Amino acid sequence: MPTDPALAAPAAPTPYVLAVDFGGTKVEAALVDAEGRLVEGSRHRRPTGRNATVPELEESVGGVVRAAAASLPAGASIVGVGIGSAGPIDRQRGLVSPLNVPHWRDYPMRDFVAGVAAELGLAVPVTLEMDGVAITMAEHWVGAAQGVDNVMGMVISTGIGGGLIVGGRVITGPTGNAGHIGHVEVGDIKGEDTFGNPYALEAMASGPHTVAWARQQGFEGATGEDLAAAYVAGDLIAREAIARTGEAVGRAIASATALLDLELVAIGGGFSHSTPDLFDHMRDVIEHHYFPFVRKVRIVPSALSSEGPLIGAAALIHRAALLP
Amino acid sequence: MPTDPALAAPAAPTPYVLAVDFGGTKVEAALVDAEGRLVEGSRHRRPTGRNATVPELEESVGGVVRAAAASLPAGASIVGVGIGSAGPIDRQRGLVSPLNVPHWRDYPMRDFVAGVAAELGLAVPVTLEMDGVAITMAEHWVGAAQGVDNVMGMVISTGIGGGLIVGGRVITGPTGNAGHIGHVEVGDIKGEDTFGNPYALEAMASGPHTVAWARQQGFEGATGEDLAAAYVAGDLIAREAIARTGEAVGRAIASATALLDLELVAIGGGFSHSTPDLFDHMRDVIEHHYFPFVRKVRIVPSALSSEGPLIGAAALIHRAALLP
Repeated sequence: MPTDPALAAPAAPTPYVLAVDFGGTKVEAALVDAEGRLVEGSRHRRPTGRNATVPELEESVGGVVRAAAASLPAGASIVGVGIGSAGPIDRQRGLVSPLNVPHWRDYPMRDFVAGVAAELGLAVPVTLEMDGVAITMAEHWVGAAQGVDNVMGMVISTGIGGGLIVGGRVITGPTGNAGHIGHVEVGDIKGEDTFGNPYALEAMASGPHTVAWARQQGFEGATGEDLAAAYVAGDLIAREAIARTGEAVGRAIASATALLDLELVAIGGGFSHSTPDLFDHMRDVIEHHYFPFVRKVRIVPSALSSEGPLIGAAALIHRAALLP
Repeated sequence: MPTDPALAAPAAPTPYVLAVDFGGTKVEAALVDAEGRLVEGSRHRRPTGRNATVPELEESVGGVVRAAAASLPAGASIVGVGIGSAGPIDRQRGLVSPLNVPHWRDYPMRDFVAGVAAELGLAVPVTLEMDGVAITMAEHWVGAAQGVDNVMGMVISTGIGGGLIVGGRVITGPTGNAGHIGHVEVGDIKGEDTFGNPYALEAMASGPHTVAWARQQGFEGATGEDLAAAYVAGDLIAREAIARTGEAVGRAIASATALLDLELVAIGGGFSHSTPDLFDHMRDVIEHHYFPFVRKVRIVPSALSSEGPLIGAAALIHRAALLP
């Protein structure tokens, strides 16, 4: 893959980044090389979740960090630790307050991980950013957004998150919370009142909220997978639900493009794989927009596997030159 | 006023920028010094408008450019021409397609102005950006956003426009159209279908659209000024109209802040002066947002006079280091 010389890894032999991805149901860690590849056998996972206490969360995060570090091949070195976390965060102070992990509010994640790294004898930089920022950097590095300077990365899953690269530079915002596309409003479609705003994109178009709407129309399935299966089988409610969610996402992308003149949106996350038709509904909104500069934005599926968030966390160190 | 040394003007004696502001009803030009001050007597204005033909528009633009250049004091020099134009634009090719000036579509404004400048013996750079970009640079330079790195400038008038400074850098977007906050959607409030989307902020919250809504409720005035006068007199429909528009603007600012982690929004334009209460309605939305990082954004009136757009056009040259 093409690598900008200015972004090349330091000269140390086989430099790896210890990458951490913290989410609402699990935390993962792995070693990632300067080409964006995971070291085989270095990927480890532990649970997090809505009911996890602070000691349980620390046990999970510490556990995957130690396990990934123990996977370091002989003759290699760890040059930094990159953490992508569910938001909101406080990037200046290294704190996290993940919406779906209520026991962590302003939790000092960066210092905790730095402490674990120090115990392991690692005196390296530790960088924390939102998971949406990390995944967007991964798409830009080795995914669907290579060579594109104005990009929004999106994840449509249990929630809807995102990140931004504008003019070739990562936009973190002063607090680290830029990229919250799931909390941009959409007109004319009403979702469920979750965090206080039924007009936020996430409240209508996440996997669970799409299923909830379908159930209100009489759909009897319970999960995004059920909905995807019903869609393939030609179920009319499933088709309406996918059309509605695709339209909502398309409208939010149109707003973001009106504001930021984006060139590309790369979308991953479990629910985005429901059916390729979901992307057609998004594109239909864009193709009918009244501004040519909005119509130019391309909407594509993520080119990353489930390793994407870890590759993105590694990019926080390997591609640090793109950060503010 | 404080000036960043890196942005200081070149060493030429008394360097002036010939600033041009092109809008839907008029075009203005003036000479602006390196401190953001207009040269007395150098400001000139001609009409534009929905019915103006190409030769009439060229006559107006050429006329104000020549008149401003003729105001150059002895011993001074013009170091560049900055043009802020109603959008959309094509910044790479220097073209403009102002929504409210239908006779200009992909019109080569930058080349036309460069030609007039050449006739006047001026061999200087000519820079074209959207008017919203220019006004945001003016707020950042000498207005309400001095020293703030994450800013949205807004104008609420016949339309709603804007511009962005993120991480201390101006965001123009690749085509030059970043900052179109008037075309970001708002949930739960429906405006008039103008350019195809009644849920775009502009369609509900511009001066004319606010008045149109009030008239639907029985208001008998015809203009934004009528509405402001009725508001002061305690008219109930006028109060509802201002509350509705303030809420809509606040919701769009909340979306933009969720996406960009903004610190400050500075708002000018004729209709923004209707009543200070308009700002309170915007702030009310922000103060009740569920994300602390959204609640942090401050919304303030522009600190610029009617000279703001010209000062901003001059900033395109005097503060060129902030542009991509």
